[in-house]
Order: sequence, then C-alpha cells, then structure tokens
Amino acid sequence: MDIPKPPAPELDVTQWFNTATPLTLAGLRGKVVLLHAFQMLCPACVKLGIPQAQQVHEQFARQDVVVIGLHTVFEHHDAMQPVSLAAFIHEYRLSFPIGVDRPDGQRGIPMTMRAYDMRGTPTLILLDRQGRMRQHSFGHVPDLALGAAIGMLAAES
Amino acid sequence: MDIPKPPAPELDVTQWFNTATPLTLAGLRGKVVLLHAFQMLCPACVKLGIPQAQQVHEQFARQDVVVIGLHTVFEHHDAMQPVSLAAFIHEYRLSFPIGVDRPDGQRGIPMTMRAYDMRGTPTLILLDRQGRMRQHSFGHVPDLALGAAIGMLAAES
Amino acid sequence: MDIPKPPAPELDVTQWFNTATPLTLAGLRGKVVLLHAFQMLCPACVKLGIPQAQQVHEQFARQDVVVIGLHTVFEHHDAMQPVSLAAFIHEYRLSFPIGVDRPDGQRGIPMTMRAYDMRGTPTLILLDRQGRMRQHSFGHVPDLALGAAIGMLAAES
Amino acid sequence: MDIPKPPAPELDVTQWFNTATPLTLAGLRGKVVLLHAFQMLCPACVKLGIPQAQQVHEQFARQDVVVIGLHTVFEHHDAMQPVSLAAFIHEYRLSFPIGVDRPDGQRGIPMTMRAYDMRGTPTLILLDRQGRMRQHSFGHVPDLALGAAIGMLAAES
Repeated sequence: MDIPKPPAPELDVTQWFNTATPLTLAGLRGKVVLLHAFQMLCPACVKLGIPQAQQVHEQFARQDVVVIGLHTVFEHHDAMQPVSLAAFIHEYRLSFPIGVDRPDGQRGIPMTMRAYDMRGTPTLILLDRQGRMRQHSFGHVPDLALGAAIGMLAAES
Repeated sequence: MDIPKPPAPELDVTQWFNTATPLTLAGLRGKVVLLHAFQMLCPACVKLGIPQAQQVHEQFARQDVVVIGLHTVFEHHDAMQPVSLAAFIHEYRLSFPIGVDRPDGQRGIPMTMRAYDMRGTPTLILLDRQGRMRQHSFGHVPDLALGAAIGMLAAES
Repeated sequence: MDIPKPPAPELDVTQWFNTATPLTLAGLRGKVVLLHAFQMLCPACVKLGIPQAQQVHEQFARQDVVVIGLHTVFEHHDAMQPVSLAAFIHEYRLSFPIGVDRPDGQRGIPMTMRAYDMRGTPTLILLDRQGRMRQHSFGHVPDLALGAAIGMLAAES
Repeated sequence: MDIPKPPAPELDVTQWFNTATPLTLAGLRGKVVLLHAFQMLCPACVKLGIPQAQQVHEQFARQDVVVIGLHTVFEHHDAMQPVSLAAFIHEYRLSFPIGVDRPDGQRGIPMTMRAYDMRGTPTLILLDRQGRMRQHSFGHVPDLALGAAIGMLAAES
C-alpha cells in the first residue's frame, strides 16, 4: 500500500517583500514552488543562491514555477533585521517575493526553518504541484541539476 | 488532425571518438539525445558549449540522456583535421562520444550540419525519446534553461 | 618651479575593526596605502572590490603596502550600522583593518568620503610612501592595472 | 663583488605572426618583455594564460612593456602545426606577436623552450629593461601578482 505523502509545512512569515499580499503554500497548489532559504550576510547565498533564485524567477512562466525567498535568520540577529533586508533587496534588485521567517523569540532558529529541519543557509526546497516536498538541499545546487529537477516537476500534471 | 513529426535527420559521420561502435540516432530511440555541434577552434564552444556537454554527459543517467558531440568543420578545414581533434579531445579530457561530420568535398558546410540547417557553432539540438527534434539553438544556452529542457523531455514516456 | 603636492586628507573614523589601535595615514608614512571605500550592501563592492582588497592585504608585504577599508555609508544608514558591519566582516572573513567613516550628523555623506570628494562606492585610492594621493578611481579597477600601480609606487624610495 | 647577470637566451623562432619583422630580445633592450610560452591545445593556456597575455599587450604602453607569445610545441606535434596555430590566432583575435619555437627535429622539446629550461605550458617569463630574466613561472600567475611584477620592472630605469 502506498501511503500518500502529505504536503510540506506551511510558511510562517512575519513580513513580506515584493508581494502585495502574503503568500501561502496552500494558495500555490498546482504550481511548482522553489523555496530558497537564505541570510543576507551569508556569502554563499549572496554569490550563488540568491542570483540563481532570481534567475529562476525571471526565466520560468509564473503559472508553472513560483520562487519564494525565505529570510531565515539564525545568527547575527541584530545585524539582519528587516530594515537591513529591505536595503539589501533594493540594492541587489531582487524582484521575487521574500518572506521574513518568524523568529522563535529566543534568538535561535526561526519557525519555518525549524519546521523544515533545515541545516543552514543556503537551503533549496522544491515542492511539486501538489505541495509535497520533492527536494531538500543544503548548499549550492548547480544550475544544470536545478533546471532538470524543475523541468521534471513542471512536466507532472 | 495532428500530423506526426518525423524523426530528425540521421548523423553522417566519418570517424568516431570515445565510442567503440558508431552511433546512430535510430539506435538511440527511447533516450533523450543532446547533439552538440562544435568546432575545436571556436572560442565560445571551448569556453561554454563543450564543458556544458561534458557536464550533461557526466550528470544524467545514460539510459535517459545521451550526449553526442559533432565536429562540424565549415571553416579553417586544414587547421581542424581529425589528428588535431584527437589531441584536443585528449587534452580537454572529453569523454562523451564525438563524431566527425562528413565533409562535403568542397570545403564548405559538412553533411550533417547541412541536413540540420545549422547556422554556425556552437549549435545545440535536443531530440526527444522518439527521435524528433524539439530544440535547435544557435549560441550558448544557459545551464538552467538547458537543464529544464532536458528534464521536461526526460519526463516524457 | 615644482610645487610639492601635500599629503592626502587624514582619515576621520569613529570605530575600527581588525586593528588593536586606530590607524592614521600620518603613521603609515613610508608605506604605500590602498584605501578601499565601500558599503557592505553595495553589490559591486561585495563581488569585486572587497575580495580584491583582501587579496592585496594577503599578497603584499606589510612593510611595503597597507590596505585600509573605509565603510562610507551615504545611503540606507539604518541598514548598515556598525553592528551589521561587524557581522559582515565576520561572515566574509575579512582580515584587513576597516574603519567606519564618521557620519555627518545629517544622514548624508560621511566626513572622510566628503574630504576625498568620492563619488560613490567602490572607490579605490592609492597613496604613495609620502602619503600623497596618486590614484583615485570610482568603480572597479582590474587586478592587472591595480597590481601595476601598486608595483610602481612600491618601487619608489 | 657583484657579478652582473647575463641577458636571457635569444629567441629561436621559425615563423612569426602579428609582426611584420622578426623580433629579437636584443632589439627590445630598454623595455620590459613578457614572454608567454604556450601550446594552442593546452587548456590552462587557452583559459588563463593567453587572455592574460592579450590583456597585458592591450593595457601597457608599448615603449614600456612588450608581450611576445611563443608556441612551444612539445607534444601532439602533428596536431599543432603552424596552419592550425594561424586559425587559432585568428579565431581568438590575438594581436600580440607570436613566434613558433624551432622544433628540435626529433619531435621533442623545441629549441627556445630547451634554452630556458621550461617545464611545460603555460610558462611566463619576465625580462627587465636590460634583457635579464627576472621571473620564470610555470603555471598561472594571478593578475594582481603579474601586474605588480611588471610595475616594479617598469619602474626601473
């Protein structure tokens, strides 16, 4: 018997950038979702992960693939408050929706990062059109591999 | 009424490298085929296209995706004879199968290049599992877009 | 008659990182000084200028060439306070001395940036062994050109 | 007593490209000379060394610094004959003078490469204004270090 896989955990976000209305994974059923978890002062995120997320956002049709950035601050909390994130988004000309992961109240790992059991940043998560987690990668995923993974998920009905 | 698309033209190759037996597109039905047409003295091929072809060759399972290089010499014929190509393949450590496109006898455009109506090098062609041409691109295709195209074709039964 | 060129303006810094004692240009007479003015949320600084400054710091003998970073915040002041800069320096593993340029009190251009009439970030300034300004460049200076400029200044007695 | 260092060995070249008249080191006294030894099918040369030589050629004033390419074929001799080198120079749009190092007649190490005791390609050699060898590097030299070396030699009278 094949037990159906449940949908991935919902996002827990305190503030959104680049979207007029808050996003939910439930509201994105039917599309492939790329969730890019980053910190604005994480060098590998700035150099590789964030430009890649922006490129996916620009390249794929929005009815097929949606990119969501998640600012998962788990260190240097004072240094990466939303006021700094806002300037970062402006200066790096990011246009995909970015949510601030809800702090846990004790300067530890924020709530969505915790729910997904992420190990650090950058983390890349792919959800299929049914909202199920299909890939969960810590560290950089090369463009060719990411493109193939998105293409295969987009081909699913 | 939907007229079925015919298979892409067969390869016309005089000499093979990196394969014990000559390859035919007919013999590769059931797999996605990436055909990378290049010249060993084409800078954009050396910098971008050939490393990308090698990467696809290494990354995807052979039962799903097959990479074929095609040396389509249409200029500087004396400079790019098979003896030079052999050294090039050795020095650049290329391991995917590479065929020499058959010269037309008049130092013009070789036969397979002509059959596919290629405009120059690098040219990237993708065939689906039925051997039909699904993409034909002159110039570099970014990794993300190529990965997505391969992923979508690989997802077809 | 040759009128001697005066020394470049002194630094006006409120806080130092990566140095136990405050630095002054006067105290560095006899060495070539590379002054790299940046903002931590300036993409071109992060991608090109700051890694280059770090590389110069690591490559040249300290008795010949000294690298000083200057954090010249002239926009997004709330986003780039010293607490954020400290985390940035830690995460990017910068080891050269970095000073915070003194704010002008009105959220405009800070004092050293003003004294040097800098147009923006990144700005690269080279001082010779007598403390005189010999190069003032807005935007990225390629490694080859920068190396040559430093080499020529280092060769002066 | 300081024994004066003799000039570096003279070039032994069978054919020149990109220069109307053959070059000699003796004829270039008074200038800094960058000698870049390469093979057209050496990947590190193509990717790093040759573009760097071209950049030095373009950037420095000709009365101060002269770049000379030397095609030192010591392997795959049939693959890298002058007819192939000519196409390579054309396709890569190289404009600095390039000489073909004289073969030794037994398909081994060519004559100038032998005289300089080079270990392979790429090799970078710097001569000062008196024609004396001041740097001899096997493998890539980063732009910053090369720029500094050239700058210091150019500063010598």
